[in-house]
Amino acid sequence: MYPVTPQGPTQPGPDALSVTFSALADPTRRAILARLSAGEATVTELAAPFDLTLPAISKHLKVLQRSGLVEQGRRAQWRPCRLRPEPLHDVAEWVAQYRRFWEASLDRLDDYLRELQATQPAADDRQT
Amino acid sequence: MYPVTPQGPTQPGPDALSVTFSALADPTRRAILARLSAGEATVTELAAPFDLTLPAISKHLKVLQRSGLVEQGRRAQWRPCRLRPEPLHDVAEWVAQYRRFWEASLDRLDDYLRELQATQPAADDRQT
Repeated sequence: MYPVTPQGPTQPGPDALSVTFSALADPTRRAILARLSAGEATVTELAAPFDLTLPAISKHLKVLQRSGLVEQGRRAQWRPCRLRPEPLHDVAEWVAQYRRFWEASLDRLDDYLRELQATQPAADDRQT
Repeated sequence: MYPVTPQGPTQPGPDALSVTFSALADPTRRAILARLSAGEATVTELAAPFDLTLPAISKHLKVLQRSGLVEQGRRAQWRPCRLRPEPLHDVAEWVAQYRRFWEASLDRLDDYLRELQATQPAADDRQT
């Protein structure tokens, strides 16, 4: 049929993909990932471009760490945060199964524009 | 620098990508999308494989409709739900910017496995 894995009431906590999507459902957390894609950064460095307190940034970081999108070094004074790409790979693989749908809708748009051009050459001719 | 658009306190509601990620952060909603990728379906048909009431399914459908992932026909008796791929395309484009990170980590794994094979040929030789 189709890949359905409904979550029963006895299942403990949300699945990994749901945790990842939930972590990504916030523009500040996505901006933190974008910053980390340029290289490791401390919490203070991450907080700098945002109008947010350190505790607020730490809360976002905890969500990102729980989902496995960010890991933090263990050295006491300098604990840089680092991007972990594995959950993003899972998102890419999940969404790729729908590629044919958006490609089909882009194709239809393409066909429509070509049809418009074919049926309305007079509009351009009138200009010349 | 990097694409940061922190959400200020005056901004109305969440951005489109956050709404999409939030809608995808549930296994039942993803299963509904998987079902609709096989073709249009009524709410009753969508509810069938799940151990959920019609109102519970309707609630999930509302979330999917608000995010633009599903649209419902307007014919009174037969209102089929249909997949709308545009928000999934946006997710694919967003996650694609991180491709080099997971490809790099797969490359590193590849290098490591090749190194293992190079340094431990004796283990295989002993078998023959």
